[in-house]
Amino acid sequence: MSAENNKFKKNYSGKRNSKDAKSNSAKSFSKKKTVKRTSPKRTKKPQKKAKPSIKISFLGGLNEIGKNITMFECEGDIILLDCGMAFPDGDMLGVDLVIPDFTYIEQNIDKVKGLVVTHGHEDHIGGIPFLLSRMNIPIFGTPLTIGLIGNKLKEHNLFNSAKLNVINAGSKVKLGCFEAEFIRVNHSIPDSVAIALHTPAGTVVHSGDFKIDCTPFVGDMIDLHAFARLGHEGVLAFLCESTNADRPGYTATEQTVTASLDTLFNDASNDRIIIATFASNVNRVQQIIDVAYKYKRKVAFSGRSMVNYMNVAEELGYLKVPKNIIIDIDMLDRYPREQIVLITTGSQGEPMSALSRMAYSDHRKVMVGEGDFIIISANPIPGNEKSVGNVIDELLKRGCKVVYEGMYDVHVSGHACQEELKILQKLVNAKYFIPVHGEQKHLRKNAEIAQSLGVDKKNIYIGDIGSQIELNEEHIKELSSVPAGKVFVDGLGVGDVGSIVLRDRKHLAQDGLIIIVASLDVYDGHVISGPDIVSRGFVYVRESEELLDEIRSSALRILEDCADRNIHEWGIIKNRIKDDISKLITQKTRRSPMILPILQEV
Amino acid sequence: MSAENNKFKKNYSGKRNSKDAKSNSAKSFSKKKTVKRTSPKRTKKPQKKAKPSIKISFLGGLNEIGKNITMFECEGDIILLDCGMAFPDGDMLGVDLVIPDFTYIEQNIDKVKGLVVTHGHEDHIGGIPFLLSRMNIPIFGTPLTIGLIGNKLKEHNLFNSAKLNVINAGSKVKLGCFEAEFIRVNHSIPDSVAIALHTPAGTVVHSGDFKIDCTPFVGDMIDLHAFARLGHEGVLAFLCESTNADRPGYTATEQTVTASLDTLFNDASNDRIIIATFASNVNRVQQIIDVAYKYKRKVAFSGRSMVNYMNVAEELGYLKVPKNIIIDIDMLDRYPREQIVLITTGSQGEPMSALSRMAYSDHRKVMVGEGDFIIISANPIPGNEKSVGNVIDELLKRGCKVVYEGMYDVHVSGHACQEELKILQKLVNAKYFIPVHGEQKHLRKNAEIAQSLGVDKKNIYIGDIGSQIELNEEHIKELSSVPAGKVFVDGLGVGDVGSIVLRDRKHLAQDGLIIIVASLDVYDGHVISGPDIVSRGFVYVRESEELLDEIRSSALRILEDCADRNIHEWGIIKNRIKDDISKLITQKTRRSPMILPILQEV
Repeated sequence: MSAENNKFKKNYSGKRNSKDAKSNSAKSFSKKKTVKRTSPKRTKKPQKKAKPSIKISFLGGLNEIGKNITMFECEGDIILLDCGMAFPDGDMLGVDLVIPDFTYIEQNIDKVKGLVVTHGHEDHIGGIPFLLSRMNIPIFGTPLTIGLIGNKLKEHNLFNSAKLNVINAGSKVKLGCFEAEFIRVNHSIPDSVAIALHTPAGTVVHSGDFKIDCTPFVGDMIDLHAFARLGHEGVLAFLCESTNADRPGYTATEQTVTASLDTLFNDASNDRIIIATFASNVNRVQQIIDVAYKYKRKVAFSGRSMVNYMNVAEELGYLKVPKNIIIDIDMLDRYPREQIVLITTGSQGEPMSALSRMAYSDHRKVMVGEGDFIIISANPIPGNEKSVGNVIDELLKRGCKVVYEGMYDVHVSGHACQEELKILQKLVNAKYFIPVHGEQKHLRKNAEIAQSLGVDKKNIYIGDIGSQIELNEEHIKELSSVPAGKVFVDGLGVGDVGSIVLRDRKHLAQDGLIIIVASLDVYDGHVISGPDIVSRGFVYVRESEELLDEIRSSALRILEDCADRNIHEWGIIKNRIKDDISKLITQKTRRSPMILPILQEV
Repeated sequence: MSAENNKFKKNYSGKRNSKDAKSNSAKSFSKKKTVKRTSPKRTKKPQKKAKPSIKISFLGGLNEIGKNITMFECEGDIILLDCGMAFPDGDMLGVDLVIPDFTYIEQNIDKVKGLVVTHGHEDHIGGIPFLLSRMNIPIFGTPLTIGLIGNKLKEHNLFNSAKLNVINAGSKVKLGCFEAEFIRVNHSIPDSVAIALHTPAGTVVHSGDFKIDCTPFVGDMIDLHAFARLGHEGVLAFLCESTNADRPGYTATEQTVTASLDTLFNDASNDRIIIATFASNVNRVQQIIDVAYKYKRKVAFSGRSMVNYMNVAEELGYLKVPKNIIIDIDMLDRYPREQIVLITTGSQGEPMSALSRMAYSDHRKVMVGEGDFIIISANPIPGNEKSVGNVIDELLKRGCKVVYEGMYDVHVSGHACQEELKILQKLVNAKYFIPVHGEQKHLRKNAEIAQSLGVDKKNIYIGDIGSQIELNEEHIKELSSVPAGKVFVDGLGVGDVGSIVLRDRKHLAQDGLIIIVASLDVYDGHVISGPDIVSRGFVYVRESEELLDEIRSSALRILEDCADRNIHEWGIIKNRIKDDISKLITQKTRRSPMILPILQEV
């Protein structure tokens, strides 16, 4: 660090103190990239043109993990930063994935100059096909990121019309009044960047996802010099990721994983080695390939997304593969098991993933058992602990050796822990601190870190999805919220599954349903056919005939009674059936299945 | 430890070595409690009566967390040990709880002498009401355990007929040829015991749930002397719990929690304190009450199960409550918030629990926000991480301070970690080691620990639900498996929800359902009324009328076509509707709702 500091020393105006930032910061930090600032206290008279503000709208990624998307507006120009997806929570039954609500973007589409993207993970690029199918916004990212986006757009038949632009880390792109500077960071996928937005209102820095790895396995260290320069020049606001804000200390370097893998490869010299990791973790795969090469093993890939990622990464030169080391998964049988490494998806215990299929003997090409040494090189994402545990148990039952969780250093996080967050926050040294990317507890922790570094509490803003703020040298204030939320993708349907449909799915999931069908005489309303009772997911029918008979005769009694009393309004009849049958069922079973009376007139 | 060791020193015959255990162990360990053993190798001639075997049937608690129940059979007598319940997994939709399959017990009911219970946790006593509603087996447990069982049986109207017997830790009870010795252990509920079963075949020790806490907050330390004595006398098999077998080191003493609570009470001197913990953790509640007393705070309870547990515990003298410290939850408003401690359920983020209701502003009596200091004194059980996280986030959003997980030492486990497991295993020093209570990974780890202590691999047995083994001095062997499994309780129904019902619930939860109803002419099969389309949980109907119209006309076409071609067999007609409509829907939406054609003849 000292060498880096020296580089800029002569420009530094001393440690910035948040308490006096308001009164004298403008003088010492205005440089070429920012429009000349004037200290508000000294300019009582209105100037020719007042310093503009910047508006930030949080359309995703706050109080949630995933679905990151932020909108910046300045002097009538808008740019978007990232456009991710999220995985559904357990209560979003049948939902495949969750994307941001694009309404507010649509309402302002005329102003939108482009989408800048920090890196190629799903929670940052997964929403792009859905965005582009509605608005063809030009996209700017580093080579690997753009490669991965392109791949994704091909699957959605949107590639040919898309406007994809490669910007290398260390470069800038002008988008309306914004100049977006791409700054190299360390993360679990190569070519990740933070983005500094130079605007007439000042510079706003977004960290993207990052960590500080001084000895990364692949590529260069995070460009701390650039952050130092920005901090020196003066930064209005820092939007900083919060994923690991509640973890003390540092994230260990990727080199520790290499060392562990080496030890394990040595130990497992008679076994086939199977390693599960995130499909997008190109650096981890590179490490595995390198260790495999050292131990003279062939490498095969399993899992569609793994194969996809590796194809793009290799094509663009981000994965260096020694000659003749990769074999097709169909060729596994041609080699002794101790000469094989299989790299697979499924580190999160996803039911349809390659590793799960292996665990449950459902994989078409790989059968696991004794002589398999399985390494799970990932930590379970909160919510996946149980399914990961189940997969491990199944593998153990089949006689595999399994290395998981904290057993060895086979995984390090891609996100900064507290000490790294402090370093970047101090380097950037922004007036306003805005924690992003995380649940409430992560955002709060990151805010506490900023406060501990001297940032004034009133200059820290914790937002929510839909929050919009306006900020300039003088103030940061919350405006009224903008349309934002969760849009569910289920099959081909985008947004056609909402709260009512989910409520019904939950009800059906809980106790199943009972359908009561009858044909009524069009003239007098008496029952001509039925009532027939059909149930699904309620009880095992063959053993509950008595109960179903009781339901049938109760329904018949209600229908005939209504006919006798000249009640022909179906709404009323159906409600009586629902109420009475539901009472009967609750009393007999203490369950409340969905009850669906269906009447037909004949 | 040295004092304890000295106590028995003169009786010890030196360190037992598993390698020579077979040949000479019988001599050195036979004492008053065990029938005299003879070394198999030295007795080629059949004796008057051969040493009997003991059969152990594992009806629950292996490869799962919860639902612990084990059956022991010797010389025609059977005793059961524990009878717990388990919580449903995420894929057991609508299931309230899971109990063991009692079929095998029913088949052998004539031989059953009693049920001995190790402690009063749900995973050890929760199945008892369901067992007793079918077989009135006498029950034996320590005072608190029997108190809690009694409470439970009252709720099920089974108390009056139940045969409940109190056995104090340190005592024995004779049940047929078994003599069950209750041995005090440390755990997270008072009055927990391990049980040594002295039988004609030898002594079998079951650890129950335990840890070694040399300085427990309440009560005495685990009776290591008793385990030492048993080990000295000779133990045939040790069934040892495995919950924390993958955690190195020791579980910290409860005293660390007291120290942390003291610090936090000091810090939160201006706040109302709300502490969530397990309702059954009487010791933890005692600690909280004691600290509250020190800081002159009143204590209220929230959550039905918390109130239940505390009533029983106080009545039986396991909870010592200073006078005038407890207030009713309705009285909270009469005291300043800084003079209150509210002890609540909900430490696992359960949706209906008191803490969740507070977090989501749904609690009838407690409204939380700024000025509330909330301590979650429990770790999330695997699978609950996400819901606990959600509750924490909601509390933080409302302005509460929240202490959770590893932030302070506000929780210690109730289970032994690796070093404690080693100590008890060495003290008991059994011929056969049988890890119980845990997922496969825990059982394997515990087996590895035993192996590392010198137990021969062939003397270690890892079973599964339904496994039955026979063991004696000469061998341990697996017999054919016995009926065992998961029985689902849903409302009042026990066992009437099985795999078919669950499969339907899953299908319904995934994509909802479409019902197609039509009335057909009884003579020619042509459509008289309908087809009507009813859908639930599929799409938002108002926005999908076109699709539903298409389904309707497609169904009508099929029905009319069948009538025209004289196809009147409903099975065939329904299948055609299912197939064609399902193809149509997949093509249009890539979803597969359940399709239910219902036909009526008029």
